[in-house]
Amino acid sequence: MSRGETVNIGMLGMGTVGGGVAEIIERSGEALADKTGIGIELRRVLVRDLSRSRAVSLPPQTLTTDPDAVIKDPSIDIVVELMGGIEPARTLISAALQEKKSVVTANKDLMARHGRELSRLAHRHGREIYYEASVGGGIPLIRPLRRCLVANQIERMVGIINGTTNYILTRMSLEGMDFEDALKKARDLGFAEADPTNDLEGMDAAYKLTILAGLAFNCALSPDDFSIEGISGVTGADIFYARELGYTIKLLATAGQKPAGLALGVYPALVPLSHPLATVHDEFNAIFITGDLTGDLMFYGRGAGARPTAGAVVADIVEAVCSLRGIGGAGLPPGMERKITPLPPAALSSRFYVRLLAGDRPGVFGTLATAFGEEGVSLDMIIQKRKANGTAEIVLVTHDVNEERFYRSLEKVIQLPAIEPGPGVFRVLG
Amino acid sequence: MSRGETVNIGMLGMGTVGGGVAEIIERSGEALADKTGIGIELRRVLVRDLSRSRAVSLPPQTLTTDPDAVIKDPSIDIVVELMGGIEPARTLISAALQEKKSVVTANKDLMARHGRELSRLAHRHGREIYYEASVGGGIPLIRPLRRCLVANQIERMVGIINGTTNYILTRMSLEGMDFEDALKKARDLGFAEADPTNDLEGMDAAYKLTILAGLAFNCALSPDDFSIEGISGVTGADIFYARELGYTIKLLATAGQKPAGLALGVYPALVPLSHPLATVHDEFNAIFITGDLTGDLMFYGRGAGARPTAGAVVADIVEAVCSLRGIGGAGLPPGMERKITPLPPAALSSRFYVRLLAGDRPGVFGTLATAFGEEGVSLDMIIQKRKANGTAEIVLVTHDVNEERFYRSLEKVIQLPAIEPGPGVFRVLG
Repeated sequence: MSRGETVNIGMLGMGTVGGGVAEIIERSGEALADKTGIGIELRRVLVRDLSRSRAVSLPPQTLTTDPDAVIKDPSIDIVVELMGGIEPARTLISAALQEKKSVVTANKDLMARHGRELSRLAHRHGREIYYEASVGGGIPLIRPLRRCLVANQIERMVGIINGTTNYILTRMSLEGMDFEDALKKARDLGFAEADPTNDLEGMDAAYKLTILAGLAFNCALSPDDFSIEGISGVTGADIFYARELGYTIKLLATAGQKPAGLALGVYPALVPLSHPLATVHDEFNAIFITGDLTGDLMFYGRGAGARPTAGAVVADIVEAVCSLRGIGGAGLPPGMERKITPLPPAALSSRFYVRLLAGDRPGVFGTLATAFGEEGVSLDMIIQKRKANGTAEIVLVTHDVNEERFYRSLEKVIQLPAIEPGPGVFRVLG
Repeated sequence: MSRGETVNIGMLGMGTVGGGVAEIIERSGEALADKTGIGIELRRVLVRDLSRSRAVSLPPQTLTTDPDAVIKDPSIDIVVELMGGIEPARTLISAALQEKKSVVTANKDLMARHGRELSRLAHRHGREIYYEASVGGGIPLIRPLRRCLVANQIERMVGIINGTTNYILTRMSLEGMDFEDALKKARDLGFAEADPTNDLEGMDAAYKLTILAGLAFNCALSPDDFSIEGISGVTGADIFYARELGYTIKLLATAGQKPAGLALGVYPALVPLSHPLATVHDEFNAIFITGDLTGDLMFYGRGAGARPTAGAVVADIVEAVCSLRGIGGAGLPPGMERKITPLPPAALSSRFYVRLLAGDRPGVFGTLATAFGEEGVSLDMIIQKRKANGTAEIVLVTHDVNEERFYRSLEKVIQLPAIEPGPGVFRVLG
């Protein structure tokens, strides 16, 4: 493979995710080419309306309203489907696979309903369909399940995989908001769609669970196979009592291997406050997976949004490029490393925690504060406690400070006659 | 590729991880072959002592004390290095790559010190070196960083990546144990080695940070490039004051992109109690990554241990097999799905939360308890509160119960004259 080679992409649909994909290819195309040795070019894009103005400007000849101009273009190797919905996406993807294009999609409804059929079709034509972006937005889930955990037998999977409902339940739980107010706030922040029915009634989570559990347990599933319950029955009273009993309420998507078969469901449930899923707040998603070898694993992040999803689509495009060109995978081709200098302390800054023992005499604290102040180290929090043996224990947390300057001031402080040697000094994660 | 084809593996070293790898290949070889269409055979294993008895019995002709019998065997395609340490691992891996073998390793010291050199050598011979198991045990980190996040610019990475020190700090923090007692308990539980110096002084975390930050920021790093501090300076007093200020103390490995370069370090630091890393307890590890597209992500799980690590090694072997045979990746070849029946409610069981409104008259609770009791539904927790309007709100949590039976008993309860319609009913994650 020679540097300078290019793979052409055709895209179906140019909404917010599609715009994000176009932007990433434009902005980071060179960085991606550095990682793979192969350039990526967005050759054709199917849109509904040629005249609409767009955030990302593409050459006018790139846009088309004719699907065949994308799917049948022999110079295009990879078709990216971002239209959403079952039709015409299903027909167009099938046609693209028959034309021996690799396909990347973010379409969860389609993959939940027809994923098997499309994978089989891809296989028959020696191609693959990539769908990391269909579940979990920017959280890597599909690839870890298919590849990293391939030696594991998955025992159980429990996920919070819908951001809208998790935002609403979190606000009801932490602020005592009622359902309607929380939904309104979710809408204002863009975490709920104009018609949020699919989210609120659990269908969105059910589609994602169908895809994830099908992969984890290597079986053919449909969202019609299990019971699906949304959050409309959850009241403030339930959240209150749950907390009193040591729980919080979350909309869970669960799949577990039982001796007789697979237990599946989407429903609101009480989650113990000590469980890692209980701390997944607001629009965040997480999946908790138990494998026979790895034990418990959790993947946490933003499960939706145009930018994370566009990032996942581009990662799939890169994967498809590597697969088509028979290279093992992107990342770190030797010799292409960036020159990065690790920074010396003079260039670093941090907040610091300092614990000092001081002789308990008048003016000690003033001397101390002056020594720090002279180096421009300002203090954020202070605790001073008298100890039994006539010394005082002083605990300080500084504001963000240059590390070299901090250590210089600490040297001075340690040399003060009232200060005992051996202070406790740690950085503070900010 | 035809079913029945086999790829031969040679293994260097047969300790606990090697034994685990041999066991997985023996036990799950067929399941893996189902996923890839290709069989995996453990052809030769380099050991120090042929006569030693082993947990996994291999045919005697598999074992050898001659490295060349593994590395130069033309029937072997993939060499798995599990000896640990720099030499002779480095020399043997280099020789294997020169023989055009793909290499899988779990050797973090080696990859931190010579990863670039070995990757370059692999590249020169058209092969790859896989090292998912070198960092994070069973937590997928290398592949997500190299592949899933390929379109992101990583802004920051903060990890708890040493299980020994996290176990010690957790016990000091939650039980008020002192350092020596916590270390002893870590040893008793197998979370600390006989000589735990590398863990306690931060070297283990520094090796892992070198590998992860090198990948995340696509640059050449060495553990000599940044300051490394262990946990020996952390006292019970510091943990106490930290908590009083709203923090817990963790050994962090951090890497962040600053305008002038990369800020790197391993050190104990105060972590806000509300931060997801604060809830990573005991021997668990987690990495918190911020990408420009995905925002915050966290990967959580057991960062060490023979079984998780062996699982990661086998996943890398499968990846190498797929790459060598030019197939896109393991997982779900269409038509190979298992036949799994999603279970009906009659086969499911759960704990249930029930909130009921009842007329506040004598005997209501008894009638209720009887109705549940008749179906064998036993109660774990009960709250009863009087409401203003002369009704009582009763909240129950059942023990684990067959779902069909639970709903049958609930039907009866709802029909009781004292009970108002519309109870709140949710499952409890157990």
